[in-house]
Amino acid sequence: MKKLNICILGASGYTGAELIRLLHGHPQVSISHVTASRHAGRTLGEVFPHLGHITDLELSGPDPSLIPDDIDVVFAALPHGASAEIIEKIYQRDVRIIDLGADFRLAEGTYRDWYGDHRCAHLLENAVYGIPELHTERIARTKLVANPGCYPTSSILPLAPLLENGMVEPLGITIDSKSGASGAGRNPSLDLHFCEVSEGIKAYKVGEHRHTPEIEQGLSDFLGSKVEIVFTPHLIPINRGMLSTIYVNLSGDHKTRDLLDALGQFYKNSPFVKILPEGTFPNTSWVRGSNFCYIGARTDPQKRRAIIICAIDNLVKGASGQAIQNMNIMLDFPENLGLDSIALYP
Amino acid sequence: MKKLNICILGASGYTGAELIRLLHGHPQVSISHVTASRHAGRTLGEVFPHLGHITDLELSGPDPSLIPDDIDVVFAALPHGASAEIIEKIYQRDVRIIDLGADFRLAEGTYRDWYGDHRCAHLLENAVYGIPELHTERIARTKLVANPGCYPTSSILPLAPLLENGMVEPLGITIDSKSGASGAGRNPSLDLHFCEVSEGIKAYKVGEHRHTPEIEQGLSDFLGSKVEIVFTPHLIPINRGMLSTIYVNLSGDHKTRDLLDALGQFYKNSPFVKILPEGTFPNTSWVRGSNFCYIGARTDPQKRRAIIICAIDNLVKGASGQAIQNMNIMLDFPENLGLDSIALYP
Amino acid sequence: MKKLNICILGASGYTGAELIRLLHGHPQVSISHVTASRHAGRTLGEVFPHLGHITDLELSGPDPSLIPDDIDVVFAALPHGASAEIIEKIYQRDVRIIDLGADFRLAEGTYRDWYGDHRCAHLLENAVYGIPELHTERIARTKLVANPGCYPTSSILPLAPLLENGMVEPLGITIDSKSGASGAGRNPSLDLHFCEVSEGIKAYKVGEHRHTPEIEQGLSDFLGSKVEIVFTPHLIPINRGMLSTIYVNLSGDHKTRDLLDALGQFYKNSPFVKILPEGTFPNTSWVRGSNFCYIGARTDPQKRRAIIICAIDNLVKGASGQAIQNMNIMLDFPENLGLDSIALYP
Amino acid sequence: MKKLNICILGASGYTGAELIRLLHGHPQVSISHVTASRHAGRTLGEVFPHLGHITDLELSGPDPSLIPDDIDVVFAALPHGASAEIIEKIYQRDVRIIDLGADFRLAEGTYRDWYGDHRCAHLLENAVYGIPELHTERIARTKLVANPGCYPTSSILPLAPLLENGMVEPLGITIDSKSGASGAGRNPSLDLHFCEVSEGIKAYKVGEHRHTPEIEQGLSDFLGSKVEIVFTPHLIPINRGMLSTIYVNLSGDHKTRDLLDALGQFYKNSPFVKILPEGTFPNTSWVRGSNFCYIGARTDPQKRRAIIICAIDNLVKGASGQAIQNMNIMLDFPENLGLDSIALYP
Repeated sequence: MKKLNICILGASGYTGAELIRLLHGHPQVSISHVTASRHAGRTLGEVFPHLGHITDLELSGPDPSLIPDDIDVVFAALPHGASAEIIEKIYQRDVRIIDLGADFRLAEGTYRDWYGDHRCAHLLENAVYGIPELHTERIARTKLVANPGCYPTSSILPLAPLLENGMVEPLGITIDSKSGASGAGRNPSLDLHFCEVSEGIKAYKVGEHRHTPEIEQGLSDFLGSKVEIVFTPHLIPINRGMLSTIYVNLSGDHKTRDLLDALGQFYKNSPFVKILPEGTFPNTSWVRGSNFCYIGARTDPQKRRAIIICAIDNLVKGASGQAIQNMNIMLDFPENLGLDSIALYP
Repeated sequence: MKKLNICILGASGYTGAELIRLLHGHPQVSISHVTASRHAGRTLGEVFPHLGHITDLELSGPDPSLIPDDIDVVFAALPHGASAEIIEKIYQRDVRIIDLGADFRLAEGTYRDWYGDHRCAHLLENAVYGIPELHTERIARTKLVANPGCYPTSSILPLAPLLENGMVEPLGITIDSKSGASGAGRNPSLDLHFCEVSEGIKAYKVGEHRHTPEIEQGLSDFLGSKVEIVFTPHLIPINRGMLSTIYVNLSGDHKTRDLLDALGQFYKNSPFVKILPEGTFPNTSWVRGSNFCYIGARTDPQKRRAIIICAIDNLVKGASGQAIQNMNIMLDFPENLGLDSIALYP
Repeated sequence: MKKLNICILGASGYTGAELIRLLHGHPQVSISHVTASRHAGRTLGEVFPHLGHITDLELSGPDPSLIPDDIDVVFAALPHGASAEIIEKIYQRDVRIIDLGADFRLAEGTYRDWYGDHRCAHLLENAVYGIPELHTERIARTKLVANPGCYPTSSILPLAPLLENGMVEPLGITIDSKSGASGAGRNPSLDLHFCEVSEGIKAYKVGEHRHTPEIEQGLSDFLGSKVEIVFTPHLIPINRGMLSTIYVNLSGDHKTRDLLDALGQFYKNSPFVKILPEGTFPNTSWVRGSNFCYIGARTDPQKRRAIIICAIDNLVKGASGQAIQNMNIMLDFPENLGLDSIALYP
Repeated sequence: MKKLNICILGASGYTGAELIRLLHGHPQVSISHVTASRHAGRTLGEVFPHLGHITDLELSGPDPSLIPDDIDVVFAALPHGASAEIIEKIYQRDVRIIDLGADFRLAEGTYRDWYGDHRCAHLLENAVYGIPELHTERIARTKLVANPGCYPTSSILPLAPLLENGMVEPLGITIDSKSGASGAGRNPSLDLHFCEVSEGIKAYKVGEHRHTPEIEQGLSDFLGSKVEIVFTPHLIPINRGMLSTIYVNLSGDHKTRDLLDALGQFYKNSPFVKILPEGTFPNTSWVRGSNFCYIGARTDPQKRRAIIICAIDNLVKGASGQAIQNMNIMLDFPENLGLDSIALYP
């Protein structure tokens, strides 16, 4: 079978490089067009020396008219705002588009509140917010998927089943997340300078991170009623890995076993979401470089509260891996095609 | 003035080494006796080569009868359970004792629930739980201080003033803490093997960490009524540093400014607790190696919730530095004598 | 085609886990027997939670009689000395054996000088020291491969071609190597305790590391005359990665270009050894988790000296990946089967 | 006694911040003027929040006319080239100047070869290259000290005594150095972006680092005849710390003991240079945050070669601490005044 042609917009960042790494092992596709505004004209091997021996692709500029007609799938790994403009111009082609940015994740009003005016609002209704485990059917039928953010992925996957079955109260949810530095991208800045990150930890954008409305919308849409959270992201000195520690109020005196059984049942056919046994809680090292998501939980029936902990690799299940999982669903490939490698441990 | 003689029980661990580092710069004391069961007979320089050029002290065994009569202050940096036995035997001497372990921190019943039978319960009523900023008077008058744990220090300091003035509800408090690996001590174990910690993060002792009752007791005693928390500690790949992110329900529509003002007022004479300006949140890098404690906060008046973030160095303000601060108070020295060095940054 | 049955002796260490990770992606084999003395009776998922969802294999004890008869390939990832005993007992079977330890790497006399008496010396003559790029023919014909150590791999690959073609003098070679902590294995010890490794660097076994004779023998055997080195290993705070900086005397006024051309020519058909362009030197991040080996070089024709720098992942090309590469050659599979994934970057 | 007034030019970088940290504990001086071009008008506490509670100094622009007349000592922690211009304008004042940059370290011709034309060459003859242990007398008499680079400090201290006493051959010296990231300063760049440094190691400026001529000149001047080195710096993922592993040819069959004795004798009155016992080699963790320098060595009498290993903190003995040590000598203070704190370990 002829391989499908892939285009990656924004191939010089970490999510772009991760798409290349993962797609390199995918048997049904071939990367044939890559762009990177600041590096246009250079080869991928010049930007990433370790890619020099697998490809001699040259990075193109951002102009959408340069994207060849035979492209089957476009991944947009661009800064927020940049993808909407390009996607608008290629949307009419016979192409599937997966946007790893935030442009098509939020309803228009929410988008405006947090990001400003939307450049391409008329396409919002066509876009499917794509957590593969929750929105399989809609993903399979759309041509434009809004790939979820990393914090939302690690928050919605553990919470959605427990909100749906009523074990967890929709209000009073606290999400305390810790992320590796790759989540902040590859643009140099003082905040991400090695010595500023190493041997330290801090919270950032306290009370104002743009993933807050995405989590609330994602959960509210899934539940069909309002879900309210408090969310605090932290930066920790690791390259990859995200741990979300979630504190919830229980609707009854549910035991740890009850929560784990409910989660296990919900994800029993999922190739990537794994529920841990009672007493075991995930380490991000167990998902490094892989598309897996581990969830552990413990309830305190007396206080009617529970702690639910979720670990993902922010660049894989939190970005590029999930994007490929969405592509697989859109193209009717097995969901885990090219994605079944296990964690790089240690 | 003659320097006072110091004895350190358990000098071969990280808190012991940190006491030596800090006391080396204290003008009024001299370390004259050090013990370490497993290293008895070796010099400090053999155990810690970087101490070899400042001292030729030899490590003694744990037998309390070996502690010279002219010792003025004893620091016990021993495993839980080990200090009670030794302290019982030296308590009648003319000596001040600061126990960095948990043996004298909890009321007897609580101790039994979490640690088992107490070996020396009759001394519990003489011991003062010593957070210097909160219990100055009692510390000044006692001869036995129970030095608080690191997680309790980083939780009680930010919460006590806000509970006392009624801004924060005493129930429904969530404390999500992240600690560097030195907090777990110097005994090799798989959990603390370099490759198991590096490039990862995990929660541990979820729902069952022994600092939970210490925090609840410390806050309840201070407030005079019951305080209830949910507490989750995490291990992150740094040597030193502890960040506690605390989520509370507000009793009214307090603004960020209100909380910060209240905290600033409460600690206005404290040499070590510093309240950050609105919009600034602490990084543990700002306290590395120092006895300082930074607190930032933000409220969400609409949801009537607040996030309060506290950073300390777990080995200094969370252990050895606070112990010396307590010693200073017990001996009527200036509270910050020997402790005013600033953070090692970066 | 029926998959071949694989046995891994010592599956609870880092090289064992790495064999499982890599073989999981190999299309022609299936892991069917795993051993781990200390964990016999437990499942792999109990020892490595992240493997729990890909296998329910139970770890067996070390007794070789427990190894099933239908095993086709045995990987021994055991402490030095332990593999010889077991390999002796299974050598007569119809099986290929790849020993990742040191037992069959050295000539008997050298082994005795550095490790003590050999428990199974009569098999030494049957064993092939297996650097796949240098000893392809012999590897293809043997049933017992001694898989090279990590430091020797990163030293011999860059030096062998330049010694053979006479550009580099065989005496006066200095090899300064830096290794991640996983190279020291998974047994807890103070030396590998997180806080002892993090934020520091040290040399170890200065002038007495057991890889010294292995490098000298490997190079001398290849060259057919004596090669002499000085070798210093260092421990750096990373999980994976090895960088060897090699200082040599040139036999003439060779230019950087000459060395790089010679290396490029030598490895032009190698799927894994990549020679970098002039002015580019490798970062171990470019090989993380992959079987690639990058080499850069620069000469100082005036001083007639050169610096050659080689980067590998110590657990892959320095251990488990190379072992699988050797297996592929022994079984007449394509050399890179199951090994062509690229680096996990960042 | 009235405290002396200190001015720090370039106070917003890492060496500037380190000067502030160390001088904060110095009993005889007071920082009264600080500059930082890009942050002029902001307070130190705005640039470094952890300094906000010890000072309310405002950062001034670079204009030398803004430096008050009552300044006694000027530390210049500026980019190469920037200090010469300013120092020229204040040199005639009654002031002592310590330049932490490279502007006054090299002879004019060498400077031109490596940095370009010198902006203030006529002052070169007045400047003293200041390694306190080697050039005490000249430092005491000058008003302008060129503070040595970090790599040169860690290379010259161990080599100078052994070259002087003839044990080590002046040609064929190899210096393989590893440095923490703070040595590269605080300006954000891709090379120092957290994810590019963490979990990796690389050599940089191979064969062309500007400290090469500084080391050669420093050693040649000290010895009185030509010394030739090959030098390779590496970047490792730590904040602070520098380890130089030095390979030399011996002039005779000197034993390890001989080298260590010679070094110990040479530095017997030095408060900061410590020679380790036979068989012990330094870890940079032993000097973190301190002005100490540890040296270990081992000879191979048979090959007539030796390995000498030196550890310093690049920001302290390699920069700001050494600068204060030089100030102490210039001002006839005890050499270790304000510098006797021991390492922050772990």
